[in-house]
Amino acid sequence: MFKDFQLIGEHPASIQVKDYIKRLILKGALQAGQKLPSTRELGGLLNVSRNTVIAAYADLEADGFVYVLKGKGSYVAALSGSVSQAAPSWQMDWTARLNGHARMAEQLDLMKHGIRADRGTISFTSIAPDEKLFDLDNVKRAFLDRMSVEGNVLLNYGYAKGYKPLMDYLLRYMDHKGVDLQGKDILITNGFTEGFDLVLSALSRPGGTVICENPTHHTALKNLKLHGFNITGIAMEQGGINLRKLEEALEQRAYDCGYFVPSYHNPTGMVMSPEKRLALMKLMKRYQVPIIEDGFNEELRYSGSHVSPLIAAAGPGNHVIYIGSFSKVLFPGLRVGWVLADRKLIYYLESIKRARTIHTSTLDQSILYQYLVNGNLEKYLKKAKTEYKRKYEWTLQCCEEHIPYTRLTGDGGLHLFVTFPDDFDSRELLEACQKQGVIFTPGDIFFTDGRGRNTMRIGFSRVSDEDIGRGIRIIGETAKQMIGSVGNGNGQHEDE
Amino acid sequence: MFKDFQLIGEHPASIQVKDYIKRLILKGALQAGQKLPSTRELGGLLNVSRNTVIAAYADLEADGFVYVLKGKGSYVAALSGSVSQAAPSWQMDWTARLNGHARMAEQLDLMKHGIRADRGTISFTSIAPDEKLFDLDNVKRAFLDRMSVEGNVLLNYGYAKGYKPLMDYLLRYMDHKGVDLQGKDILITNGFTEGFDLVLSALSRPGGTVICENPTHHTALKNLKLHGFNITGIAMEQGGINLRKLEEALEQRAYDCGYFVPSYHNPTGMVMSPEKRLALMKLMKRYQVPIIEDGFNEELRYSGSHVSPLIAAAGPGNHVIYIGSFSKVLFPGLRVGWVLADRKLIYYLESIKRARTIHTSTLDQSILYQYLVNGNLEKYLKKAKTEYKRKYEWTLQCCEEHIPYTRLTGDGGLHLFVTFPDDFDSRELLEACQKQGVIFTPGDIFFTDGRGRNTMRIGFSRVSDEDIGRGIRIIGETAKQMIGSVGNGNGQHEDE
Repeated sequence: MFKDFQLIGEHPASIQVKDYIKRLILKGALQAGQKLPSTRELGGLLNVSRNTVIAAYADLEADGFVYVLKGKGSYVAALSGSVSQAAPSWQMDWTARLNGHARMAEQLDLMKHGIRADRGTISFTSIAPDEKLFDLDNVKRAFLDRMSVEGNVLLNYGYAKGYKPLMDYLLRYMDHKGVDLQGKDILITNGFTEGFDLVLSALSRPGGTVICENPTHHTALKNLKLHGFNITGIAMEQGGINLRKLEEALEQRAYDCGYFVPSYHNPTGMVMSPEKRLALMKLMKRYQVPIIEDGFNEELRYSGSHVSPLIAAAGPGNHVIYIGSFSKVLFPGLRVGWVLADRKLIYYLESIKRARTIHTSTLDQSILYQYLVNGNLEKYLKKAKTEYKRKYEWTLQCCEEHIPYTRLTGDGGLHLFVTFPDDFDSRELLEACQKQGVIFTPGDIFFTDGRGRNTMRIGFSRVSDEDIGRGIRIIGETAKQMIGSVGNGNGQHEDE
Repeated sequence: MFKDFQLIGEHPASIQVKDYIKRLILKGALQAGQKLPSTRELGGLLNVSRNTVIAAYADLEADGFVYVLKGKGSYVAALSGSVSQAAPSWQMDWTARLNGHARMAEQLDLMKHGIRADRGTISFTSIAPDEKLFDLDNVKRAFLDRMSVEGNVLLNYGYAKGYKPLMDYLLRYMDHKGVDLQGKDILITNGFTEGFDLVLSALSRPGGTVICENPTHHTALKNLKLHGFNITGIAMEQGGINLRKLEEALEQRAYDCGYFVPSYHNPTGMVMSPEKRLALMKLMKRYQVPIIEDGFNEELRYSGSHVSPLIAAAGPGNHVIYIGSFSKVLFPGLRVGWVLADRKLIYYLESIKRARTIHTSTLDQSILYQYLVNGNLEKYLKKAKTEYKRKYEWTLQCCEEHIPYTRLTGDGGLHLFVTFPDDFDSRELLEACQKQGVIFTPGDIFFTDGRGRNTMRIGFSRVSDEDIGRGIRIIGETAKQMIGSVGNGNGQHEDE
């Protein structure tokens, strides 16, 4: 007894001793009526000070685990509330109880079935921001500013719709992007993903249909599938979605909604051209299909002229649901995104949000708000864009030099998209590269129809310049060898 | 033009000027090729310094909104990316597109259909903690401690399962409550509500059935209904659920799971007796029904001996899913809860969580972790329990003195539950009290079967001593008047 006690890190010693004794009592190792060692004795056994044990015993007494006989010592109390000794226990097969939704969520979970990076691997799989760019001091200042203004309020329950100052700030922010706010409202969410999930939760129906770019954001594809949508993907070409194919598809059947990523599209990195945006909006009006717009990376413009979101182009119309987030631009750890849409729709989404998570962390929202209001976004974006632009250009240069692509796209953002010849297998390339310590995202996961085996996404935001150079050279050389040997029956062919 | 500009609060002036001009351009009020006022002139018009305008114009140029002709001035650029002028807009009826889930979430949303507190009203509707008790300095210290250790990591993406140090801490915490961790795992969620929603998402099926206490936590009822469960409520008696009725129900049909709130049950405030816990566990084993345990308020024990959670009583069994949260005990604004359950089940819940919200705010998790590890929970609980105990006893005394109840329950926690004579209508009481500036929660919302019109919940945590005294006197006097007039046909009878 008392031999398995170990002090852990910073946690106060007296609490650790108390919890340790409590556990022995609850697990039946110390029985009711049993005398505990004296404080001096236990201090010696556990290698803590006597005062630590005195404090622990006092807490145990206050919590009803121990009683004291004056002049005699401390004894284990009888625990009327503890039923662990007598209760029956049994094992059940939880997997047999899981429904299709749970199984599907697991099957489509790329973190479980994707490639894993070993230590030291050069990984082009991430498009998260480079944390070395984070301006921690401004985040700390924002937190302390906000806590001193209304710390008590921030730590208590907030509102499902969101933290009012942030909502107002983001409404102004969208207004400055040219959005007509009349008849619209905003809902704060735990990032883009929750926003998208809430919208789909409200609009899904058996046999639901959605039209989108092909390839597209794989988390969006996952959630569309989890909500039972039939997905029609429309091929991309230079400048964005192929409008002729879009129109053909719209003519063939009705769609519940369209999902589009017009700026720095994931995974192709394309910015949809103004002409295509206009034509897209006209088509969607003609066929009366509302739009879910993914505002992904909109802020990461390195060059070229300004691009307005589709919801700005919709003017007073209420047919665009815009989902925004600063996760890729600022801090993904702060789980804050927003849905800007028709007021009536937001009214219902608010109730779904309340049933799911009550509200988004008020602390996250208030820190983001204060960070923004302090004028840090603009400063940070200048710094981040300079750095990412440099990396973008360097990655582009490396790809052009080394990779035997048939198409290379990416107008900005944090990644490039490579298309190889039709019969190329980038899963095979990945396997060969992984042996040489380099990984990337195989492009097929972004496709709606099983295609894209000949594509890959290169995320460069968190890779050093040196590793970008080395990694892309390895990918390129390996790909060239593979292309040289194509026709020898080595390649697995895509599903065309 | 330029007359509607107004500087807002702390946001840097040059950014506000930039955003203002940008907006005029995007909305078409400033046209391509148009000359902008000189910096001096615009400074005068907007009542800001010339330097502010210079900085704003420079940013507008960098972002492609403005071009400069040397010696001539600044001009509005042609925005190839802006389609707002030409795109067609249309209106659609979103409510017609909403599915049953969205409609039901709205209908069951008590924040929308509940009673609203006017300013100055004495409100007994809340059971949130009293924010005046919050120890802000320790929260600030926890934040700064954690940020200095790994701020960059905290602000980037984390893991769906949770922030590792917090997961480990909570596993130890549950181990100290006597839980056998063998074969179990933990998932961090955005509070109890998300944990419960995830579990139901994995286990729901058409015609699903659940058995629970009646009355019970209304948010749980809402989510059970949203997931399509048929709910069987079992009446409560002194010491908790009526075991005879529970057994009768279990005999009649199969249940997918049981949902129980064994400690400081919401709304009755009862702590299930050890005998009932043991008998409950035996019954659930006999009928092979797994348990979802709501760890609600378990920490708010004011007196009486220690009570172990059901999952501790289950020993090595894997048939209890425990959902915990510090929201009522510590800070609801930090949206952190956890699910402790069978390892295989958690594996699937993790994937559903990832699809819904990616992960819980790392900042919230890390602050909570550091706050706990600094030993603050124990200190805070001592302070909070002293204060809540005092309020609890005062409220109890007031209720005993003034309210004509037939049953008054609440062994601790932050609320009491009042049952009036059978034909009493507490909705009517509420209406009469609201006119006198006092509100409470009508008990019927907690019932599974439309009963409980003769009950109410009194939450006292956020009401001052003086208001508790005054408010309960008003409720009591009004209730006595109503009881005096019963039989005059005034009362609406409950659905028995």
